[in-house]
Amino acid sequence: MKVSIVGVTGYSGLELVRLLRSHPEVHIQSIHSSSQTATDLTELYPHLKNICDLPLEPVCPEKIMRASDLVFFAAPAGIASVEALPFIEAGFPVIDLSGDFRLKEAGVYEQWYQKASAPLAIIEQAEYGLAEFRSNSKARLIANPGCYATAVLLALAPLAQAKLIQQNSIIVDAKSGLSGAGKKLSQTLHYTEAHDNMSLYKVNEHQHIPEVLQKLQEWDSGLTQLQFATSLIPVTRGILATVYARPASPVTAASLHELYRTTYADQPFVRVQSAGTLPALKQVIGSNYCDLGLTYHEPTQTIMVVAVIDNLVKGAAGQAVQNLNIMQGYPVEFGLEMSPIYP
Amino acid sequence: MKVSIVGVTGYSGLELVRLLRSHPEVHIQSIHSSSQTATDLTELYPHLKNICDLPLEPVCPEKIMRASDLVFFAAPAGIASVEALPFIEAGFPVIDLSGDFRLKEAGVYEQWYQKASAPLAIIEQAEYGLAEFRSNSKARLIANPGCYATAVLLALAPLAQAKLIQQNSIIVDAKSGLSGAGKKLSQTLHYTEAHDNMSLYKVNEHQHIPEVLQKLQEWDSGLTQLQFATSLIPVTRGILATVYARPASPVTAASLHELYRTTYADQPFVRVQSAGTLPALKQVIGSNYCDLGLTYHEPTQTIMVVAVIDNLVKGAAGQAVQNLNIMQGYPVEFGLEMSPIYP
Amino acid sequence: MKVSIVGVTGYSGLELVRLLRSHPEVHIQSIHSSSQTATDLTELYPHLKNICDLPLEPVCPEKIMRASDLVFFAAPAGIASVEALPFIEAGFPVIDLSGDFRLKEAGVYEQWYQKASAPLAIIEQAEYGLAEFRSNSKARLIANPGCYATAVLLALAPLAQAKLIQQNSIIVDAKSGLSGAGKKLSQTLHYTEAHDNMSLYKVNEHQHIPEVLQKLQEWDSGLTQLQFATSLIPVTRGILATVYARPASPVTAASLHELYRTTYADQPFVRVQSAGTLPALKQVIGSNYCDLGLTYHEPTQTIMVVAVIDNLVKGAAGQAVQNLNIMQGYPVEFGLEMSPIYP
Amino acid sequence: MKVSIVGVTGYSGLELVRLLRSHPEVHIQSIHSSSQTATDLTELYPHLKNICDLPLEPVCPEKIMRASDLVFFAAPAGIASVEALPFIEAGFPVIDLSGDFRLKEAGVYEQWYQKASAPLAIIEQAEYGLAEFRSNSKARLIANPGCYATAVLLALAPLAQAKLIQQNSIIVDAKSGLSGAGKKLSQTLHYTEAHDNMSLYKVNEHQHIPEVLQKLQEWDSGLTQLQFATSLIPVTRGILATVYARPASPVTAASLHELYRTTYADQPFVRVQSAGTLPALKQVIGSNYCDLGLTYHEPTQTIMVVAVIDNLVKGAAGQAVQNLNIMQGYPVEFGLEMSPIYP
Repeated sequence: MKVSIVGVTGYSGLELVRLLRSHPEVHIQSIHSSSQTATDLTELYPHLKNICDLPLEPVCPEKIMRASDLVFFAAPAGIASVEALPFIEAGFPVIDLSGDFRLKEAGVYEQWYQKASAPLAIIEQAEYGLAEFRSNSKARLIANPGCYATAVLLALAPLAQAKLIQQNSIIVDAKSGLSGAGKKLSQTLHYTEAHDNMSLYKVNEHQHIPEVLQKLQEWDSGLTQLQFATSLIPVTRGILATVYARPASPVTAASLHELYRTTYADQPFVRVQSAGTLPALKQVIGSNYCDLGLTYHEPTQTIMVVAVIDNLVKGAAGQAVQNLNIMQGYPVEFGLEMSPIYP
Repeated sequence: MKVSIVGVTGYSGLELVRLLRSHPEVHIQSIHSSSQTATDLTELYPHLKNICDLPLEPVCPEKIMRASDLVFFAAPAGIASVEALPFIEAGFPVIDLSGDFRLKEAGVYEQWYQKASAPLAIIEQAEYGLAEFRSNSKARLIANPGCYATAVLLALAPLAQAKLIQQNSIIVDAKSGLSGAGKKLSQTLHYTEAHDNMSLYKVNEHQHIPEVLQKLQEWDSGLTQLQFATSLIPVTRGILATVYARPASPVTAASLHELYRTTYADQPFVRVQSAGTLPALKQVIGSNYCDLGLTYHEPTQTIMVVAVIDNLVKGAAGQAVQNLNIMQGYPVEFGLEMSPIYP
Repeated sequence: MKVSIVGVTGYSGLELVRLLRSHPEVHIQSIHSSSQTATDLTELYPHLKNICDLPLEPVCPEKIMRASDLVFFAAPAGIASVEALPFIEAGFPVIDLSGDFRLKEAGVYEQWYQKASAPLAIIEQAEYGLAEFRSNSKARLIANPGCYATAVLLALAPLAQAKLIQQNSIIVDAKSGLSGAGKKLSQTLHYTEAHDNMSLYKVNEHQHIPEVLQKLQEWDSGLTQLQFATSLIPVTRGILATVYARPASPVTAASLHELYRTTYADQPFVRVQSAGTLPALKQVIGSNYCDLGLTYHEPTQTIMVVAVIDNLVKGAAGQAVQNLNIMQGYPVEFGLEMSPIYP
Repeated sequence: MKVSIVGVTGYSGLELVRLLRSHPEVHIQSIHSSSQTATDLTELYPHLKNICDLPLEPVCPEKIMRASDLVFFAAPAGIASVEALPFIEAGFPVIDLSGDFRLKEAGVYEQWYQKASAPLAIIEQAEYGLAEFRSNSKARLIANPGCYATAVLLALAPLAQAKLIQQNSIIVDAKSGLSGAGKKLSQTLHYTEAHDNMSLYKVNEHQHIPEVLQKLQEWDSGLTQLQFATSLIPVTRGILATVYARPASPVTAASLHELYRTTYADQPFVRVQSAGTLPALKQVIGSNYCDLGLTYHEPTQTIMVVAVIDNLVKGAAGQAVQNLNIMQGYPVEFGLEMSPIYP
């Protein structure tokens, strides 16, 4: 099949190019950018020379729909909610990597993103693409989850589905590499400021919070609040999310481990670590894995779950490819079989 | 005054050399190592050429006591508990940077350190040297706190002293640079494994936990347990400790900020950030500062305090110099006035 | 076809596992280690969970030859020269990633490696596997080049073949990431020492020097000496080799660029940059590319060529796979089509 | 004495604040910025809280000359050539850290900086402040050298003064940390692009080249050209300059080492390493040292000198303080006695 990528010059767009290159059923037909037309992609990104020598085109829905079978939107928030509409209205398959179609309530979107929401009739068609927990494999509009949301939801899903979490007890301490902040220049992302540093930002104000709560409540309606700290660590790629919660009923480390093992037994991209082992960030970089480990501290009744992902793969482009595979009925590993890069 | 340093080839020992160089009242008389005698320090550490050209000597208590006025022990745990005894028994001033004299109960030491404790009669003479909260400025044996313990205790002190912490609600999520693990080679500390990585270790098993609890209970006897996660981030220096707790009685972000501001009003090395601002790791590196910031999330009743220190300065050698200043009645800033290195 | 890997626990061995996973014609039959038997590879390297769950076996030539069609040796120098002999003597295909079969004169090997050389009769069968300049595609014993040698030879080949280099004028200033030094622990490779550092080592004494000279002399017998500085920069992967030389006859920047463009016109893994553009290290990481750029400074008559490679791919495992493809008559891109990881 | 700093918000300006804090004879009277007035410096740079709480003022020469005894200009090129004129014309002491007064020929400045030169009458008053080789200790206008120039000139001075360098044989391969590029945002300096990367820029076009040549020719008028490559390595601070040259008359490694040892025997900030030892970058970071080591490769007649400095200290603010000490007749170590930060 043929696909087009809108927003290819951002880090998620570039990662789609990398991943789709090894997808046996997908051919990249065209690449698009609203901001950077008339340039060759390899001028901006010489690593793609001989890999993707396509011209950067403006977004012309009719042309794309004629030539391709599916379009990825990998643009910042606020673009797809406008530019993807012609595709969606035509029933053309869209996988959007931004937050524009994730939230079911327009007011919530507008509160957290400070932008106008997409029309409600469109949002209703969107399927939240947490690939391991999709409800409708036939959806034609996929709202690919945020990177933090992916890590946190995979960390909490087994507990939430089992209604094992005490209300208001969730504390998320999430650490992200700097590619998560994108390629837009800022003082915080300047090398000399970010290197050898760690800093917190948007504590309890990160726009991924509402999608986490929305999904959690599908599993356990009592989960209406959480404490959510987001921070930057000096690596390019990767999220390590540490999630704390108190159990609503008695648990043991062994029972929790068994719960996780069972929940993810058939999920090739979630690797539950051996009991007592916590994953390190680097063991997933470059791959679509989410590795999970947990501990239970009996004296304070604290469950700690650690999730690691590559924010650009499982947290963005990789999960988007996984969603494409689901939509098309391809084996879920297609285009995603790469090992982590180690060391 | 003249001082000697035992264990000078470790990172805390080296840092004592760096800091004392600018102390107007202190002269380094001799440097010692049990493991690395007969070598010049500058052969091992060429950065010290022309700065500290002293020979590395074995530890001879009589000789040290004759020539110096005070001895620093900067050796790994299990050394000072034996080698410092002749000094202590002679009433000679000792500042120990290891954990050997921090814990008042020998059994607790032996449980967490898996080593034989120092004699109880000696331990009783030791003053826990959390410099901002010293009880006895005349003590001749100082047990300098651990790096994690320093950050966490300074983060929690105002709350604990005000009995504002709900029992069993403390969760510590602490991140450390790799110099905290010392210069002993290991796979985890190998560059190719540690770079671009983040990993957890010794969760709820770190040996700094009992000293944190011991000190907290001086302030609030109900604080008998905490969840404590320790992790490595890819920087050489620095600890960023995020501490979560629930309030035992109603608080607001403003009341908490005021509490911190007041508690540390006269402490030159603790800088409470403006309300709503959280400190970044790099703003203290190379200096003796502990910078603190906090938030309060009302919906989940979660207090979050963020503390940043340079683990080798405020978390080790700097605090040791601060304790020397207290002991000698020097201005507390002597030897510690260096700005952070930025960028 | 089925292959076995000896020395799989080193970084080059691990990289073979990563690359071969995407090779459409190769299946890893067994993995071997002399030092680490009886362990699961995923216990040592959790990133390989579900990717390579084979047991670590000792090296048993008969068993390997029965079960596999080719063996890779990815062990440190001095192993293959002994352990590969049964395979070679049996005419079984061997691709060796160490220096053991690269040098045609036993005395030169022994001088630079300080180890006993493999038997001369064996060495004579070995083909030096600089993949772009192979002379015998039928060889059954491949001596895969060293990482520095690969970068430097690809940088110099067009000049040397055209006899354009003034004698004794070559100066190599090569910078390597730390994975090049392997996983063996040492003070230099300790994170706290290597991070934020750059250091030189083995200047004019690096063991890759003789293989560079040996190959250069195949092209131009006058190239008998070079100045060769090797250094470590704080990245995990990658070599950036800057090579300086004076022209033996008049050149221009344009004529040089044309020479390089022509030489590598049909080589998919060597990407000559546009005239006036020099490659950055990161644009090849994770891939088998060698990117080349050059300048000519007329006033001092200095040619500067910059080559960048991923030392573990084009400088080791990737080139080994390329050599396997040549040996088997597979398309040269098989198993090597991955894009660089960027950012 | 009292000093003012113009351009304090740049990295060199910040470093002046750090260094002068420990200068026993200097008090910072006022800080100035053309671009960032009306803000508190600690709002921009929280690491300076309680260290430098002065307000950021616009540049008013009369006011500064009334209140202070000397002014540092730490602004980008093109500012001091205009804004420092009132001070210079009034005979007020000025130490300028930019390139505006370094080059004796206005045309050369304009060619390399693409800006209008300062008036010739002013330039003539300027003393090039390579502190170890100052000719006039009484100058009131100091043109503080560039960071690359400092490293390269200290590496070449002994050879050039002894007329030991073959004409046109100098090749400079210099590597710099990213703080050398300043705090202005750019794609190249974005964390995700710079981290794990190494790249060359401005090869044979860097604006420090003419000041190097100008100074070299004071020592040996035949040194009219050099090949000069500048590059970025992923560290915040530090320059490692590798300088190659051929001898004009016979030398040995021993004779060269002796030459360097002798030349710098009385210079406290230049540390010639033991024979056969090359300096590592990290051994000078945070300090005013320039550490030098060298090798001689007889077969190719190549001298290699390696110089390491902290670009913000010896390469900028530290050398500026050294020049202040010379001008005022203070001991040269004042304000500069800090040890390198290690590890």
